[in-house]
Amino acid sequence: MLEMLEEARLLDNRDPLNHVKTQFDTPKNTIYLDGNSLGPLSYPVNLRVQEVMNEQWGQDLIKSWNQHNWIHKPQQVGDSIGKLIGAASGQTICCDSISVNLFKVLSVALNTHEGSTVLSTKDNFPTDLYMVQGLKALFSARNIELKLVAEKQLEKHIDEDIAVVMVSQVNFRSGALLDIPKLTKRAHENNAAIIVDVAHSAGALPVHLDRWKVDFAVGCTYKYLNAGPGAPAFLYVAKRHLGASAQPLYGWMGHAEPFEFSPDYQPAADITQYLTGTPPIISMAATEAAVSIFESVSIDEIRDKSIKLGLAFERAMETSGLDQRFQSISPSSPKQRGSQLSYEHPEAFAICQAWIAEGVIADFRAPNYLRIGFAPLYLSFEDIFHAVEKLEKIMRTKAYNAPKFQAKNKVT
Amino acid sequence: MLEMLEEARLLDNRDPLNHVKTQFDTPKNTIYLDGNSLGPLSYPVNLRVQEVMNEQWGQDLIKSWNQHNWIHKPQQVGDSIGKLIGAASGQTICCDSISVNLFKVLSVALNTHEGSTVLSTKDNFPTDLYMVQGLKALFSARNIELKLVAEKQLEKHIDEDIAVVMVSQVNFRSGALLDIPKLTKRAHENNAAIIVDVAHSAGALPVHLDRWKVDFAVGCTYKYLNAGPGAPAFLYVAKRHLGASAQPLYGWMGHAEPFEFSPDYQPAADITQYLTGTPPIISMAATEAAVSIFESVSIDEIRDKSIKLGLAFERAMETSGLDQRFQSISPSSPKQRGSQLSYEHPEAFAICQAWIAEGVIADFRAPNYLRIGFAPLYLSFEDIFHAVEKLEKIMRTKAYNAPKFQAKNKVT
Repeated sequence: MLEMLEEARLLDNRDPLNHVKTQFDTPKNTIYLDGNSLGPLSYPVNLRVQEVMNEQWGQDLIKSWNQHNWIHKPQQVGDSIGKLIGAASGQTICCDSISVNLFKVLSVALNTHEGSTVLSTKDNFPTDLYMVQGLKALFSARNIELKLVAEKQLEKHIDEDIAVVMVSQVNFRSGALLDIPKLTKRAHENNAAIIVDVAHSAGALPVHLDRWKVDFAVGCTYKYLNAGPGAPAFLYVAKRHLGASAQPLYGWMGHAEPFEFSPDYQPAADITQYLTGTPPIISMAATEAAVSIFESVSIDEIRDKSIKLGLAFERAMETSGLDQRFQSISPSSPKQRGSQLSYEHPEAFAICQAWIAEGVIADFRAPNYLRIGFAPLYLSFEDIFHAVEKLEKIMRTKAYNAPKFQAKNKVT
Repeated sequence: MLEMLEEARLLDNRDPLNHVKTQFDTPKNTIYLDGNSLGPLSYPVNLRVQEVMNEQWGQDLIKSWNQHNWIHKPQQVGDSIGKLIGAASGQTICCDSISVNLFKVLSVALNTHEGSTVLSTKDNFPTDLYMVQGLKALFSARNIELKLVAEKQLEKHIDEDIAVVMVSQVNFRSGALLDIPKLTKRAHENNAAIIVDVAHSAGALPVHLDRWKVDFAVGCTYKYLNAGPGAPAFLYVAKRHLGASAQPLYGWMGHAEPFEFSPDYQPAADITQYLTGTPPIISMAATEAAVSIFESVSIDEIRDKSIKLGLAFERAMETSGLDQRFQSISPSSPKQRGSQLSYEHPEAFAICQAWIAEGVIADFRAPNYLRIGFAPLYLSFEDIFHAVEKLEKIMRTKAYNAPKFQAKNKVT
């Protein structure tokens, strides 16, 4: 084991992302393996929030909409996010939640594509599925169908009956990575649109929405993008779909001339049409600062380190014998998974709690998964070593049997 | 004029809201008459944002959802807002934007009431009208009609053909106050639902949603509630409508058991069903702190001072002769208007700019209105005196003719 620790330190010394780690204000004595649920606070975000709150809102009040260009933040921040997901300017906008954004792009995709079946996977993130169910309930006359299949069956179910293929690039439970270029090609061959949820991929691995010819995408900024709890989400609409059909949440901020205050809705011709209400400026400023951290690193470096962190975790699990006690539900090849590993264990909940008590924060996902996220911007190889060392101790001492760890009183 | 200044100072000395004024961090040499567009920063908000960002998110990371009860913030903050709008606990929730919230309650109101006509006023705030137009476009089969009439004609147009009456309690342009109890009674006599937008009334004047038997309401927190630019909005659903029909933006946060991650949507039985995506925690914490300021004052004291500030403004306009140059478009009786006055003037835009240059921030609203908001928590009678004094100088010297004030390069 000592050898592994030395190797971890060596890898850390050579880590090309070292200069970014210092930007994060992570608590001492904590190893954070849950950056795929909620990324940590960084100094740039902290400073920006204070600046926007005190100097802009506090001092310049309403004038800030012009003076500090608040009014164009959704598009500006959208374009910054766009750089991380392979989207040329003018196609990405920062606003609302993933769920609300999905409602918008789903409506447009259904309006512009023949058929009424939305194809997705059984274990897609639930909110994505719920939004289709809600849209279906709304259209009493048009019979929208939601067809759910296993991930491996997706491709063969994309046929001419499908109007929209709606998938997450990375499965939130298992971390399995879908082949988006291939699915997009297959969707287009069948005149279907594809909507990709990049919540678990933006900022963690290469995404090339333009190059892959994806039609629509949605994603969130509070996971690998570290913009803070409930920070605004984003959506992407390929240029060819802009103006084809208006998204139905006609809010004043999506109007061509919002400050004319006309009683009739006239959609903006560009991505601005995807706005609805007044943008949340302070959260959006936090998002802007959080995304700016990515300017000094490449997504390939991030992906490379993410894969190495995952492999180091697996190797430590093997060396300590833990691989015999936990059943991995993630793909075995690093190229087929996102930036996480998930393990099944009947005591996953209590183990997760005992691990947290030891300062290692991972995620429990019902019914019995331990989910470990690798966020390369701030995690070190030594962190991985110590995390597994602590897990080994918990399993050896059966510390997870303590009543305080067994009590299921947490909600998330 | 000197007499008026002395009187203003006397009124300020006796002001029962004096103890609240010190909570606001308004910039020096600024008189802020635009709190009905964007309320100012307060010390409680500033401190709370720093606390939630640094101590909660920064230190406790993902654990904060349980440890700091982030998960129940939408309901808790909703209930605090509920106290300001006469809503008993469990009917108000803080989330999304007014526009998105209107979409939810409009859908439910239409689903639970016969007919398909939404009645509103021609000069209602545009986003309210747009949301109906968007919903109409979405339902290709069901022919939703939006019928717009003048405010004075509203009552007589509420007949059995109307499904939903959708009004703003206070007109955003003129400040005219509608008689909500009367309209609600008339709506119910005709089996219609009433949706009230309280954006320009919450925190400024008495609102009694429960007592008036209003069905649904929406409102925002960044005007008189001072929660910051684009802070989350709120919605109210009368208890009798909860569970009657699910709002259609089925997001995971509105699910009965979100952390079961079931693929099938099951609406929460209570107001939680009106949630959609992950709540914006930092903005919501700011909202909570902003609303807490109202705990030490009564809404009747606020209304009383608001009326007196408006009358003081009108009197100063008369004394300085400005009432001859500006055409008031607000109701003449203080009881028939909200917490604002609006004046028409062909040079309203440039005058507003010149006034801002003198440190008096009011609002211009297209095509040619000068809108003056009275936010009693931080405005003084002396502020009103000086504001009019500066306006008189601008009009006397024709300072508004300067090219820098005439240039229409601002967006809001």
